[in-house]
Amino acid sequence: MRFSRVFYFPLKEDPKDAEVISHKLMVRASFIMRLSSGIYSWLPLGLKCIRKIENIIRDEMNKKGAQEILMPIVQPKELWTESKRWEKYGKELLRFRDRNERELCLAPTHEEVVTDIARREIRSYRDMPLILYQIHTKFRDEIRPRFGVMRAREFVMKDAYSFDRSEEDAEKSYAAMYDAYANIFRRCGLTFTVVEADTGEIGGSFSHEFMVLAETGEDIIFFCEKCGYSANHEKAEIGGNFKLSGKRGNYKKVLTPNKRKVEEVAEYLNVPKERILKTLLYKSEKGTFGVLIRGDREVNETKLKNLLNLDFVELLSGDEIERITGAPLGFSGPLGLSIPLYADKEVGQMEDFVVGGNEADTHILGVNVSDLEVRGFYDLRYAQIGDPCPRCEGSLLSKRGIEVGHIFKLGTKYSEAMNAKFLDRDGREKYIVMGCYGIGVGRTLAAAIEQKHDKNGMILPISIAPFEVTVLPINVTDSYSMEVAERVYTELIDAGVDALLDDRDERPGVKFKDCDLIGVPIRVTIGEKNLKEGYVEIKMRDSENTEKVKKEEVVRRVNEYVRKHKSN
Amino acid sequence: MRFSRVFYFPLKEDPKDAEVISHKLMVRASFIMRLSSGIYSWLPLGLKCIRKIENIIRDEMNKKGAQEILMPIVQPKELWTESKRWEKYGKELLRFRDRNERELCLAPTHEEVVTDIARREIRSYRDMPLILYQIHTKFRDEIRPRFGVMRAREFVMKDAYSFDRSEEDAEKSYAAMYDAYANIFRRCGLTFTVVEADTGEIGGSFSHEFMVLAETGEDIIFFCEKCGYSANHEKAEIGGNFKLSGKRGNYKKVLTPNKRKVEEVAEYLNVPKERILKTLLYKSEKGTFGVLIRGDREVNETKLKNLLNLDFVELLSGDEIERITGAPLGFSGPLGLSIPLYADKEVGQMEDFVVGGNEADTHILGVNVSDLEVRGFYDLRYAQIGDPCPRCEGSLLSKRGIEVGHIFKLGTKYSEAMNAKFLDRDGREKYIVMGCYGIGVGRTLAAAIEQKHDKNGMILPISIAPFEVTVLPINVTDSYSMEVAERVYTELIDAGVDALLDDRDERPGVKFKDCDLIGVPIRVTIGEKNLKEGYVEIKMRDSENTEKVKKEEVVRRVNEYVRKHKSN
Repeated sequence: MRFSRVFYFPLKEDPKDAEVISHKLMVRASFIMRLSSGIYSWLPLGLKCIRKIENIIRDEMNKKGAQEILMPIVQPKELWTESKRWEKYGKELLRFRDRNERELCLAPTHEEVVTDIARREIRSYRDMPLILYQIHTKFRDEIRPRFGVMRAREFVMKDAYSFDRSEEDAEKSYAAMYDAYANIFRRCGLTFTVVEADTGEIGGSFSHEFMVLAETGEDIIFFCEKCGYSANHEKAEIGGNFKLSGKRGNYKKVLTPNKRKVEEVAEYLNVPKERILKTLLYKSEKGTFGVLIRGDREVNETKLKNLLNLDFVELLSGDEIERITGAPLGFSGPLGLSIPLYADKEVGQMEDFVVGGNEADTHILGVNVSDLEVRGFYDLRYAQIGDPCPRCEGSLLSKRGIEVGHIFKLGTKYSEAMNAKFLDRDGREKYIVMGCYGIGVGRTLAAAIEQKHDKNGMILPISIAPFEVTVLPINVTDSYSMEVAERVYTELIDAGVDALLDDRDERPGVKFKDCDLIGVPIRVTIGEKNLKEGYVEIKMRDSENTEKVKKEEVVRRVNEYVRKHKSN
Repeated sequence: MRFSRVFYFPLKEDPKDAEVISHKLMVRASFIMRLSSGIYSWLPLGLKCIRKIENIIRDEMNKKGAQEILMPIVQPKELWTESKRWEKYGKELLRFRDRNERELCLAPTHEEVVTDIARREIRSYRDMPLILYQIHTKFRDEIRPRFGVMRAREFVMKDAYSFDRSEEDAEKSYAAMYDAYANIFRRCGLTFTVVEADTGEIGGSFSHEFMVLAETGEDIIFFCEKCGYSANHEKAEIGGNFKLSGKRGNYKKVLTPNKRKVEEVAEYLNVPKERILKTLLYKSEKGTFGVLIRGDREVNETKLKNLLNLDFVELLSGDEIERITGAPLGFSGPLGLSIPLYADKEVGQMEDFVVGGNEADTHILGVNVSDLEVRGFYDLRYAQIGDPCPRCEGSLLSKRGIEVGHIFKLGTKYSEAMNAKFLDRDGREKYIVMGCYGIGVGRTLAAAIEQKHDKNGMILPISIAPFEVTVLPINVTDSYSMEVAERVYTELIDAGVDALLDDRDERPGVKFKDCDLIGVPIRVTIGEKNLKEGYVEIKMRDSENTEKVKKEEVVRRVNEYVRKHKSN
């Protein structure tokens, strides 16, 4: 393409609503444009990157025998009622009515429709394994859309679904998709890691996330260097055994007027936060209960829901707490409470600690574990750096990343709910065993930008950059420069290189800046002085060095570089 | 691909809800699956065709310098209020609210968003010409979705928008798109014609439709063989001058008890329908008026709206008629009516005719044109075969077609409503001159099927068929047959031919049937008997003949055929 015709209106200033660098750069570089909260248009430069990512995805999915389909965005209530998600899915599922008052929704994910397709066609074990995928728009009515296309309401996703006759075969499909995902992100030029993750709203038996590593990532990854264990913040298990302290309490009540928060109590009583035990009271669809946890820790509600097999948990309000403990918010404690109590396992190692007194302005000092009546000690908190690894003797470290892919072993969750059966070789009807596999396409591009950029703009991998190379004549009014530039450009295009010719009559500084902002990996600069000696200049976006190359050599050199780095 | 792994579950019976052949065949051949009224999933075979059509479109759009974007499906009310279409667009615009009670809609078309993009970026005449396009899902809440993907509620469309500094430049963009569309449909292997059309809900100054010719098409095209004039049913103008008859009436009232319809009156009074004048009473946003038309003709309400510059017209109800004429429905006439009357120009040629009496059970005989008080005589009816051509001395013929593309010269309709301006070379601010251009992608495939099929299934053009060739070994248990089949298949794939290997252990009849049903243009049959003599068989889907070809020759022959017919 010729730069003079490209839809490109760069901004010098960061957009006001942008918090992260990828969002800022994508808006500044005419990659995206905001229409409404969490709703963006993809402009030509951004969409070129997206199409490249999509083609890599398509290629790797097809290699695994997956078949592309396209499922509707607008879906009828009835299907979602079958899976019980019409009721269970939160407000992210946008529900509405059509002109005939039929209830519909915008699909945030496609398990229901794809299971319906499968159950209508699959009759026999011979019809499987089957993997279907689509690359399509989804809508999730996020409560707080942010970070541009990273957490948008409307977004492009690749979602795949596998159908197998047995758990064993389903795990083979899962492994094939795992492998495809690793190939996809490698070919997109990303540095990534795979972590264990929770299955969340989607459900199923286990799952992995593909995380692009970036210091600015919003996700925290915990990992063990010793054994290679790796999990996301929600999922990261905490290892280590605990030994219950045998000591029995000799506790006493103290007044702590208006001291409700852990920090306030710690300061007032002059004890470290680690020696305060928090008592958090929850409600759920199965009733009210309490969680005990060390004062400086946070409850991981995902672990809590998984442990107690709950659909929702929510902290009690002040009024509800008062009805149960007799004391206002901030003074709850485990002693004498009649609701079930679940302790984080770290609590087992605490000694001589402070708890709420279940009376206004009152705490209790000198409590020990043996004084507590709990249902048990469980892994209920978020991991921290230094926590014991759940798999070996090592301890956990953390790094930051951005989730770009998520794969789920669903088992028979949807096939049972929607009665998707097949006739197995043994003549028996069985439920189809499923998996599902997602990639955020726009998010992958955003993650690439977060992973590598500098003060001048994006530094994009060659496989997903809007162009592979810019041919940049310094002076477009010099006819020889333009003649060489046109020739180099045309030869690159003929060689199958995605080249941009910067034919704009702008100052060199502007042209260099634009080329850097949009992250084109290779720049071929054609200057009058060099040209007199028969040379042009090659510069890589991720390096400061420039290299003089004979003008007859440049097409071959660029082409070689592109071939080599795209096939990586 | 190997047929054994293709998602293909053919139906022997036509689906009950399918009225047209393309719908029947697409469902029977696992191309599409219905999810809900007017909402379909594209299955792998169908989507392969769609992707091929999309790539042809993309290629031809890019050749004209158009740039691909992707605009949101979910759009905020505010934009649609600016163009006044939030109120004016009918119920096809599906409106709803998000979790924060903000009003949104599903986009049936994208003029608003693309005009917003343009006005936010375009500052100068130097930023134009600009053509943006997308290939994306749209939603129109059709009152009666039908014909499968032909008139679906959710559908894939290519929509393009041009932005120019002057009417003259805008007409160049229009011409470029016209040319691109002709190339696209030609490359899709379709026989089509271009007709003048009305601009409808989209608006603007003129428009053309691209019609695929098919006997089963739902659209009627009128054309003149003499001068080449061509227009759709809604638009087709009627030529010819009329001479008012000078005769003055000598009319008389007659009783026509309970005879309301033209047929009833004609029979009762024993006059031909051509000698009855219908008086139709309408309401509109500008008030009530009447239309006079020959008894055997139909009013074209589009022509009526365009003539009187109205947004809506609707026939009066019986009660409303009674209030105006004093007579019940069926007895309205022009004599003595005080509302404005507009006559179809053919009325000017009528003599000695019958009109309603504006009294119950009464008509008037012997009326002549000079007795009427009308605002004028205009082209207000639907054309018929034999009507005079509006451009020459010829007369109109008709044929049937399916609209697959529609291009509009919008002018400044949207740029004025949404204040999209630019600074022209002369230093003055002007409104951007726009055009818009749509192709129904799924509909193009359906039209190809309507255009060419037989009792065995689809006969698809090679450029858009799910596969270009099927390699079909008759007996897959014969190892030599399979060896040759695999070799031919692999060599075709390596040559870039989109080949299907029918590796299924099915009876030859089943395999031939399936290959015919899904419309694969070339079949290479590998039979044991022929193979012994070193031959395989080539058969074209659209011919009954088979040809024996040396097995070493077949790849070259197929490849040549594919190259030749795809580049047509």
